Amino acid sequence: MTLTGPFAFASFAESLRAALAPCPVETDPDILLSFSRDQAPLAPAGVARALVRARSTADVVATLRFANGLGIPVVTRAAGTGLAGGANAIDGCILLSVAAMDRILRVDPGTRTAVVEPGVLNAALAAEAARQGLYYAPDPASREISTIGGNIATNAGGACCLKYGVTGDHVAALEVVLADGTRMRTGSLAAKNVAGLDLTRLLVGSEGTLAVIVEATVRLLRAPRPASTLLAFFETLERAAEAIVAMESTTDLSLLEVMDRTTVTAVEDLTHMDLDTSAAALVIAQSDAADASEAISTCERLCRAHAARDVIRTDDRAEGEMLLVARRKALPALERLGTTLLDDVAVPKPALPEMMRRIAAIAERHHLTIGTFGHAGDGNLHPTIVFPGTDGASRAVAFAAFDDIVRAAVELGGTISGEHGVGSLKRDYLGLMLGEPERALLGRIKAAFDPNGILNPGKAI
Amino acid sequence: MTLTGPFAFASFAESLRAALAPCPVETDPDILLSFSRDQAPLAPAGVARALVRARSTADVVATLRFANGLGIPVVTRAAGTGLAGGANAIDGCILLSVAAMDRILRVDPGTRTAVVEPGVLNAALAAEAARQGLYYAPDPASREISTIGGNIATNAGGACCLKYGVTGDHVAALEVVLADGTRMRTGSLAAKNVAGLDLTRLLVGSEGTLAVIVEATVRLLRAPRPASTLLAFFETLERAAEAIVAMESTTDLSLLEVMDRTTVTAVEDLTHMDLDTSAAALVIAQSDAADASEAISTCERLCRAHAARDVIRTDDRAEGEMLLVARRKALPALERLGTTLLDDVAVPKPALPEMMRRIAAIAERHHLTIGTFGHAGDGNLHPTIVFPGTDGASRAVAFAAFDDIVRAAVELGGTISGEHGVGSLKRDYLGLMLGEPERALLGRIKAAFDPNGILNPGKAI
Repeated sequence: MTLTGPFAFASFAESLRAALAPCPVETDPDILLSFSRDQAPLAPAGVARALVRARSTADVVATLRFANGLGIPVVTRAAGTGLAGGANAIDGCILLSVAAMDRILRVDPGTRTAVVEPGVLNAALAAEAARQGLYYAPDPASREISTIGGNIATNAGGACCLKYGVTGDHVAALEVVLADGTRMRTGSLAAKNVAGLDLTRLLVGSEGTLAVIVEATVRLLRAPRPASTLLAFFETLERAAEAIVAMESTTDLSLLEVMDRTTVTAVEDLTHMDLDTSAAALVIAQSDAADASEAISTCERLCRAHAARDVIRTDDRAEGEMLLVARRKALPALERLGTTLLDDVAVPKPALPEMMRRIAAIAERHHLTIGTFGHAGDGNLHPTIVFPGTDGASRAVAFAAFDDIVRAAVELGGTISGEHGVGSLKRDYLGLMLGEPERALLGRIKAAFDPNGILNPGKAI
Repeated sequence: MTLTGPFAFASFAESLRAALAPCPVETDPDILLSFSRDQAPLAPAGVARALVRARSTADVVATLRFANGLGIPVVTRAAGTGLAGGANAIDGCILLSVAAMDRILRVDPGTRTAVVEPGVLNAALAAEAARQGLYYAPDPASREISTIGGNIATNAGGACCLKYGVTGDHVAALEVVLADGTRMRTGSLAAKNVAGLDLTRLLVGSEGTLAVIVEATVRLLRAPRPASTLLAFFETLERAAEAIVAMESTTDLSLLEVMDRTTVTAVEDLTHMDLDTSAAALVIAQSDAADASEAISTCERLCRAHAARDVIRTDDRAEGEMLLVARRKALPALERLGTTLLDDVAVPKPALPEMMRRIAAIAERHHLTIGTFGHAGDGNLHPTIVFPGTDGASRAVAFAAFDDIVRAAVELGGTISGEHGVGSLKRDYLGLMLGEPERALLGRIKAAFDPNGILNPGKAI
């Protein structure tokens, strides 16, 4: 079967529809275009051939069987909120949307687990868990609009990771479909399980390159205690970063975030919260431990010892939530300033002050605005490069700064991506993290799952 | 090169010595025999051809290159404290001991990590971390005599898992040698890292079938607070199990263990601690949370509400340690009663009462003594079958009970192994956990690491 020319294209669409009926298959170019990108505007994207809107595991199986037989690439997606181009179209691919597979199948307070389809929004699961007095911890900033399937595929992080770990720490079991259409289950409801290799953990973060997730069993926690919250403004980035290292190494916190002056100013312009835009950095800490108030008092002392100019604290949950709005608005506020290129790097915690110094120096060197915010307690920063134009020259300068930031993180013993994934945006940097033997091994593992290489080829690994 | 007959054997040993010199290579049959078993006396073991006592990564590389070229199986071992026969010899294999690679290379309070060779004892690392005010959490019962390499290879558990997770949750990075002698690094010092697939987690628990661990970077925690401790004696196993489920689902505990009457009686006979041997079960709980004393008070109330006949509690750390001795002596105490066949199963937590009922019924049905103890808060039990003889008939009855226990755990939604591993003892049960597609996939992943199948073939997967 050859697939060139308009007739061949028509016959491709017809055969796909025939293979999948009654599952909706879109081939309208405008629709395809609108599904061909995630939220990484500067990551490369190709032209898709069709969009399958799967409604069930059977639809996923049928799509993969069809594609595998013909060697057609399949890019799986749900909400498309990814930040590394992992869900971007590949030329000639089938886009396989699992967004409509959005049922919460079960929440079980006994085992403290929930079974969900991949298209369930993170916030919908969290709300359902909360209704039953339970807590779904993983909290990527996108949680209101991103799905559990995408969260698992990227091993999404969030502010909770400092205490509660990443998405993968909360996945008990998966049902997936392999490239040839074989259904497979991994994991267990038992809290501990060492039967066989840990395929669940291998699939988490594999960005659609190994299999398509069709069901996930996630762990829920008991509802956390009310948190105590602190906001501290610092004269210099260095003192803020040092205070963060001091707090993280002595205190039991559930959140420890940073925003630099550029970010604080952008948020203040958006929200009029009366933030101190003359400070070089804002640090936000929370504890939900049994001694939360005492922990936050310790943080207050440490911030003052590191020359914080102003400290606000509260033991009230609602007030704490209001203070967190400043952090939640960081990215939308920066996006109002121009085109943005969002980076995501993580360094070992003691390297945080040096990393923040280097980002500032990179901004200066390239005459660029870089707003830096992130999960500082984990050493995970999101330097966001803001530039006015969308022309090639502007982009080139932005990418040069992006490049410098990624390399600085690796030089400091860190990683090219803390939580957003590699996707298509960072694939060229994998060589900074992995040697030739590791990359060759990843290729062999990929082939063990997907011998024809149809699943999101050219991404992530 | 053929390897049969005495001359060929001599030439094999000579070529191995020549390839490895000056690394010690043993071929004395008595020495080989003493290194041919771990601590699972009833798991099958073969006859090894040589023992290599590796002193460095270079020795491991040379051993694997030699073995891979000739297709000779390699069984890696360190202290040999495994409980599933994972380190048992295979006929004609090279035993590769990494016990002498026992240096703690670095403890870094800044990143809260330690870099160790695989032969470092768990307790030695924990002690060194403690000297620096830090805490290595994974605490398998064998920690005084088992190594970090073995702990990682089996993803060892322990009592800490309830709060702190399994060994794999504390491994940041690995250096391993692949079957062909290639050295490879995985992981990162950053707290969050999503670059590439999670090879670190895939290697954890792979029981020597994928690669040989030559260095591990593990995460350390801040030293925990002093724990509060509770011991409660119950009239019936069911009420004890129900109390455990109630405590686990409401209270922030760091340890929640159970021992049945058989185990308590054996421990009392050994220790004369004045334990109540007329009770059907003893439950031990600890909390090291900021509100530990309050948490233990809640547990006390819950135990009394579930008809505990006697409750002892203390907020004193030293007293708590003394009370824990009862639990630590469980296995040695049972081993004094006869030959033991130690099982290791885990069930979803709500199934704990039913699992304990079933174990009692299995003991009755087979007219056997079964002492059950374990990490009840995780649903992880170690029913220990005690039988007088070592003859075939006695063993057959013991294995029939073992079989019933494993199947009961799986029927209740649990796993064939919570923390001891599959090794050779439980390989026949893998089919209860994994379907044909999963097993085929494990085989393909194994081949991606070890195409000639020399690493611990016939074990674990």
